[in-house]
Amino acid sequence: MKKITILGSTGSIGCSTLDVIGKNLERFQVVALSAGKNIKLLKQQIEKFQPKVVAVSTKESALNLREVLNSKSRVKIFYDEEGLKEIASFPSANIVISAISGSAGLIPTLAAIEAGKDIALANKETMVMAGEIVTKRAIKKGVKIIPVDSEHSAIFQCLQGNKRQNLRRIILTASGGPFLNFTRNELKKVSLDQTLRHPNWKMGKKITIDSASMMNKGLEVIEAKWLFNVDISDIDVLIHPQSIVHSLVEFIDGAFLAQMGIPDMKIPIAYALTYPERIMNDLPTLNIVKTGNLEFRNPDIKKFPCLGLAYAAGLCGGTAPVVLNAADEVAVSAFMENKIRFIDLSKVIEKVLARHDLINNPSLDDILQADLWARIETKEIIERIIT
Amino acid sequence: MKKITILGSTGSIGCSTLDVIGKNLERFQVVALSAGKNIKLLKQQIEKFQPKVVAVSTKESALNLREVLNSKSRVKIFYDEEGLKEIASFPSANIVISAISGSAGLIPTLAAIEAGKDIALANKETMVMAGEIVTKRAIKKGVKIIPVDSEHSAIFQCLQGNKRQNLRRIILTASGGPFLNFTRNELKKVSLDQTLRHPNWKMGKKITIDSASMMNKGLEVIEAKWLFNVDISDIDVLIHPQSIVHSLVEFIDGAFLAQMGIPDMKIPIAYALTYPERIMNDLPTLNIVKTGNLEFRNPDIKKFPCLGLAYAAGLCGGTAPVVLNAADEVAVSAFMENKIRFIDLSKVIEKVLARHDLINNPSLDDILQADLWARIETKEIIERIIT
Repeated sequence: MKKITILGSTGSIGCSTLDVIGKNLERFQVVALSAGKNIKLLKQQIEKFQPKVVAVSTKESALNLREVLNSKSRVKIFYDEEGLKEIASFPSANIVISAISGSAGLIPTLAAIEAGKDIALANKETMVMAGEIVTKRAIKKGVKIIPVDSEHSAIFQCLQGNKRQNLRRIILTASGGPFLNFTRNELKKVSLDQTLRHPNWKMGKKITIDSASMMNKGLEVIEAKWLFNVDISDIDVLIHPQSIVHSLVEFIDGAFLAQMGIPDMKIPIAYALTYPERIMNDLPTLNIVKTGNLEFRNPDIKKFPCLGLAYAAGLCGGTAPVVLNAADEVAVSAFMENKIRFIDLSKVIEKVLARHDLINNPSLDDILQADLWARIETKEIIERIIT
Repeated sequence: MKKITILGSTGSIGCSTLDVIGKNLERFQVVALSAGKNIKLLKQQIEKFQPKVVAVSTKESALNLREVLNSKSRVKIFYDEEGLKEIASFPSANIVISAISGSAGLIPTLAAIEAGKDIALANKETMVMAGEIVTKRAIKKGVKIIPVDSEHSAIFQCLQGNKRQNLRRIILTASGGPFLNFTRNELKKVSLDQTLRHPNWKMGKKITIDSASMMNKGLEVIEAKWLFNVDISDIDVLIHPQSIVHSLVEFIDGAFLAQMGIPDMKIPIAYALTYPERIMNDLPTLNIVKTGNLEFRNPDIKKFPCLGLAYAAGLCGGTAPVVLNAADEVAVSAFMENKIRFIDLSKVIEKVLARHDLINNPSLDDILQADLWARIETKEIIERIIT
């Protein structure tokens, strides 16, 4: 019986993870859950999966949760960042699913690593912000970091049984999002609604917008660098509109391996939970003939400058990816509130990056400071756009 | 330094193997070679690679070879089937490349297994004719059988690091050959020349004709059954005209792995020689964007009945695949001599299969007898077509 903690249980990945667990209760037991403000859903999850401890974001939410729970419930409720660290390191768990959205995932994921837990990593910001620190601590603690992102899971699967020194490069595939065939001019007028209509994947709002701007792929490039110990220059991106080939690797002999499947996160989630085993599921199977032709194109960085910015930040290293990520989070929020246009996203982020004084080999404190700085800076730049 | 014996060194796979070895002389040493009647090429290979022993098919060829070799050459020359067994089990070799074309490959490959050599298997007839005996003896002797066929190498690569019980099915890809888009009526009139024009692969004549009839894919299905211990019903064939995806596997969780690359046998040959390592080469690398869309279709068994016959023989088991293979060898020879038409291939083979009294769990002797019987029977049937 594998004992599981889910950080971010009410988000898209959290819910899919509980779906996988709920269908395999003979294998998995939920010991801890964390959520932000969706107390209603968290209550249902507690009643169904009976974790021993949970964490919510504020004391107010904690009181609220206690009130709505059955008085017989013996679940312990923690709150704020300390509470999150508490459940991330909860003793009986074997594996922690890091599925909090955004930069908030970093500190609890580090806490789980310090506590010696294996990590199923869905929070790419952990690697984007602090890849070097995270990978070093994971090695020191002897914990495995198993990717959950479909692309990184694909690469992880392709690399099984192959030696690292035989790898030539990684190729991340990208659907291209809803605006793949838009002109730069058409991009000027796209609405939030259009941006949220991803052609292939059902995901949270932030990542869906990042997919439309290709910032998501850029963050994935940086994540891949750390997960697989590969230079940024050996990580390529290919547009593959069918989202069937989830990513590829090329070996030094010119042989490629590609992982494929229907676009459903439950497959990589289950793999991360059961690795190196696989388990059956009730999902439809991929019919490659019905899917039709598989297309591959080079990405257009002029049309999607966020991808170029991410490559640049990844190559710079140090605190540049921290700033890239924080600026993107703030800019995407502003776009969701209709404060800026879709094409402003890259302009705002580029300005913030240009103003940043890079710190090489940053400490965790340097990283958190750069994150704070970038958020304030981004907000200021956005204010100036509005006024 | 890996010491290598090549059975069938003057054929297509043999020459490509020597090409790989010639570019990696710091890794590989040729200790033994065998050839049929191409003494001129064998002489060049002996001079370049300095094997200790060679085998040719007849005493006449052996005398001829001794005559043309420099009198200082100390290479030992063997001949006939006994000579072939001698060099297949030559003591100092670590690995034997089984690259003789057709059923003649079986006995020397078994001799190499008995002598405890790892096998790089390009001779699919070894598995088609005697898969059960061969795999059992390999297990008993603790020798590895590493596939060389691009499809089976692809599957072998996809299965690395994955447990056998997690495999759901194997999907062999087929280019579809030169007649993919021909109607059944057009197939009635195709010439030998047309048949030998494979769109993607440069190979020997027999396998090129088998590719056009899809018998080659059928033989590969039976080969895959034994190489990977999979039921025939869990092996599918997909037409993939680009010959870029060399084959795929599907796991029980719905995840697929596909191996891809340019269509050049030197890649799987080198992999078989260096497994589990890979080595660099000077081949052009695959550009997936330039390749264009990757297509997958279901095969048309009505148009290519040889594939259906092979599936049927594979499902029957016993001596049925032996008869299928022998009938195909004789029929293809007759087609090369313009004695029968392309569409007669399947008709002849079907008749021979229908007349065969199946033997289950055949001994090696049963297999060799069934092979002989089928050859005589096939010739008789062909004679009747001609007269």
